[in-house]
Amino acid sequence: MKILLKNTTLLDMVGNEPNIRKTDILIDEDEISKIEENIEDEEAQVIDIKENLVMPGFVNTHTHLAMSIFRGYKDDQKLMDWLENAIFPVEDKLRPDDIYWNTFLSCIELIKTGTTTFNDMYFGMDKTIQAAEESGLRGVIAWSITDTSIKDKIERTREYHQKYNYPDSKIKIYVSAHAPYSCNPDTIKLCVDLAKELNTGIHIHLAETLQEQAIIKDRYNKTGTEYLNDLHVFDVPVVLAHGIYISDNDLKILKKIKGGISHNPISNCKLSSGICDVTKLRKNGINVGLGTDGIGSTTTLDMFEEMKTAAYLQKINTMEPTSINAYEILKMATIEGARVLGLDRKIGTIEVGKKADMIIINTDKTHLYPENDLCTNLVYSANGADVDTVIINGKVIMQNRKLLNINEKHVKKNIAKVVKRLL
Amino acid sequence: MKILLKNTTLLDMVGNEPNIRKTDILIDEDEISKIEENIEDEEAQVIDIKENLVMPGFVNTHTHLAMSIFRGYKDDQKLMDWLENAIFPVEDKLRPDDIYWNTFLSCIELIKTGTTTFNDMYFGMDKTIQAAEESGLRGVIAWSITDTSIKDKIERTREYHQKYNYPDSKIKIYVSAHAPYSCNPDTIKLCVDLAKELNTGIHIHLAETLQEQAIIKDRYNKTGTEYLNDLHVFDVPVVLAHGIYISDNDLKILKKIKGGISHNPISNCKLSSGICDVTKLRKNGINVGLGTDGIGSTTTLDMFEEMKTAAYLQKINTMEPTSINAYEILKMATIEGARVLGLDRKIGTIEVGKKADMIIINTDKTHLYPENDLCTNLVYSANGADVDTVIINGKVIMQNRKLLNINEKHVKKNIAKVVKRLL
Repeated sequence: MKILLKNTTLLDMVGNEPNIRKTDILIDEDEISKIEENIEDEEAQVIDIKENLVMPGFVNTHTHLAMSIFRGYKDDQKLMDWLENAIFPVEDKLRPDDIYWNTFLSCIELIKTGTTTFNDMYFGMDKTIQAAEESGLRGVIAWSITDTSIKDKIERTREYHQKYNYPDSKIKIYVSAHAPYSCNPDTIKLCVDLAKELNTGIHIHLAETLQEQAIIKDRYNKTGTEYLNDLHVFDVPVVLAHGIYISDNDLKILKKIKGGISHNPISNCKLSSGICDVTKLRKNGINVGLGTDGIGSTTTLDMFEEMKTAAYLQKINTMEPTSINAYEILKMATIEGARVLGLDRKIGTIEVGKKADMIIINTDKTHLYPENDLCTNLVYSANGADVDTVIINGKVIMQNRKLLNINEKHVKKNIAKVVKRLL
Repeated sequence: MKILLKNTTLLDMVGNEPNIRKTDILIDEDEISKIEENIEDEEAQVIDIKENLVMPGFVNTHTHLAMSIFRGYKDDQKLMDWLENAIFPVEDKLRPDDIYWNTFLSCIELIKTGTTTFNDMYFGMDKTIQAAEESGLRGVIAWSITDTSIKDKIERTREYHQKYNYPDSKIKIYVSAHAPYSCNPDTIKLCVDLAKELNTGIHIHLAETLQEQAIIKDRYNKTGTEYLNDLHVFDVPVVLAHGIYISDNDLKILKKIKGGISHNPISNCKLSSGICDVTKLRKNGINVGLGTDGIGSTTTLDMFEEMKTAAYLQKINTMEPTSINAYEILKMATIEGARVLGLDRKIGTIEVGKKADMIIINTDKTHLYPENDLCTNLVYSANGADVDTVIINGKVIMQNRKLLNINEKHVKKNIAKVVKRLL
């Protein structure tokens, strides 16, 4: 199966400056096979892009997709009140089918707002995988491990890793230690051993709140980053979600990690967690991707909103408008996010030989006109509704905002049942 | 002319808690004449809202609509570099017709994202009024006065005030002193005298940057707020744009003002101006509305983005997630904004006797589902593209996202000419 995209305006996200050009793009099966002007190919299905923008799909580096039913649920509260009184009691009652439908609803939102790859941490991994596969998304998936029922979660992680660890799999299995405060040293060690055994990475929350830092300091007399470092977590690739409270010594440690930090600006604001010093992290050569966190804390999975908020927070935190620019933000949402997930050889840019994960943005909109600077318009004015078409692994998932193989109404109907039973 | 909105879900924005109910709404000429279930009226044009949401249109309390051509123009720069090297040289070359087309482009974006009233400060007032009237918007308009050509600007303000100061006019003329740093005491005094003479208010920038505070301190040994207070600016109603740097003594002064403060969170972030302590201002009984500032600094006029960013900034600035909630943010964007402009008897809520300024939000979207909390979904997940229909002063301006009496392509074509000549 070949797809020929004619008359594109391509933002390839390769290099340190925006490279925007008119071109055609040929997709052969799951890969980008040719990028040049005036491609002809009789076998290919032709899609006329009409000079709209083609760019890599977004990479959401930290989320909990099954939390979609918590959209707006008992919102605007303190984190611990919200978790203990609103979220945890309901999560205890979640059945595997709930996780499937909840995740599917999130998958639809991801696709409709231009995300093609996500990094998920939750439980019920099999159902998350099923929803991801059926919706067409690329995903890194991990079963959240805490100090309880460890053996079962490790076994599940191993089982699904074996099942999906084949060349060109769209599903990649990570080990997830939940967080320094919820995983004692023995648990962390088991996770590191498992990641080494499976030759995969670890997805963990780190340095999200001052309260967390105080707990770790009190228990171990060190920072969260030092705690993980002393337990050899950084021997394997990592995705560190949040990374707000980072000391100078932590920074030295983090400079050497493989993987990187997932910055979740909206969640960090809504839960009053704090501002991650992305500017400093990036200056020190640490990869920083963007993430949405779960819908419960963020309310939307639209990566355009995360891009805006990430830029705003850096400019206000540094009191320096030049601290980050629109193209750097776009990199965080694409290739830099891919690097955080160890997927940068496969995705994150539009280049020959890479997997065909791309989105087409309808730029013929009033709020994107005039177009003095395409990257600025994308980051500061576009939103998820401007995504017209989504291609993942060479397959058209959404075209002209219509989902081609997903029955959205059916998903919503099932969500209604879950909500009725649980909320 | 009567319009009957059948099967609405109404969020009326009256009261301190959200009031959401199923109802019909009858509009008679420019006013809301009946809100109850099962209204029948044979003369009325019936619009079936299909249980979508009806709420008051947004009130944008501070903008410079003619700056639309600067969208993304030499962005991500320091304020003074940007103004002196990018903006001012072009503004010097603006012709009256440019102001008309530029403003019209902004008017289209306002309507498409649900704003029904704006408060503008610029020059070329006649052209701003023409674009507002032709597009159907309600507007407060002021000719920005600085220390140069004062007499002419005062005369223009007086002339247009006389022309538009009639009952039920959609255009209201304010006096604009530009800012404390650009208006010496004599200029400010002339503006106050003019506002008193015309029985209108003053629209002024105040306490936007630390640099501005330093200039005023150096010149007059007082704060900007004290400077204005000593010159009797607060004898008349005011719209104070930004209000970031407010001392304890300033707060005492501001408690007594008529009008209020326009909070522009995105502009304040993008220009690294600082965070306005909205929570403190509101606790002290000061009206705070939301504004977008000009497209040059903000890139979009979508008030949904301002609502999100306003909430994020308060929660991060106070480190307290309960500091502001979604409904309070919606109030700032509607009735509280109307109060800042002295228009709260006319607009800002959906009540019998008020002007029919309302928007219909299509809530049948994945990113607004499930609907555990309508206000939370509106503030944290909706965006301008969810606005389906816009009614201003009893007239349908946009229906099913189609502008009924505006030729968008024609506007864009003229903008292209302006951009080609100037940028």
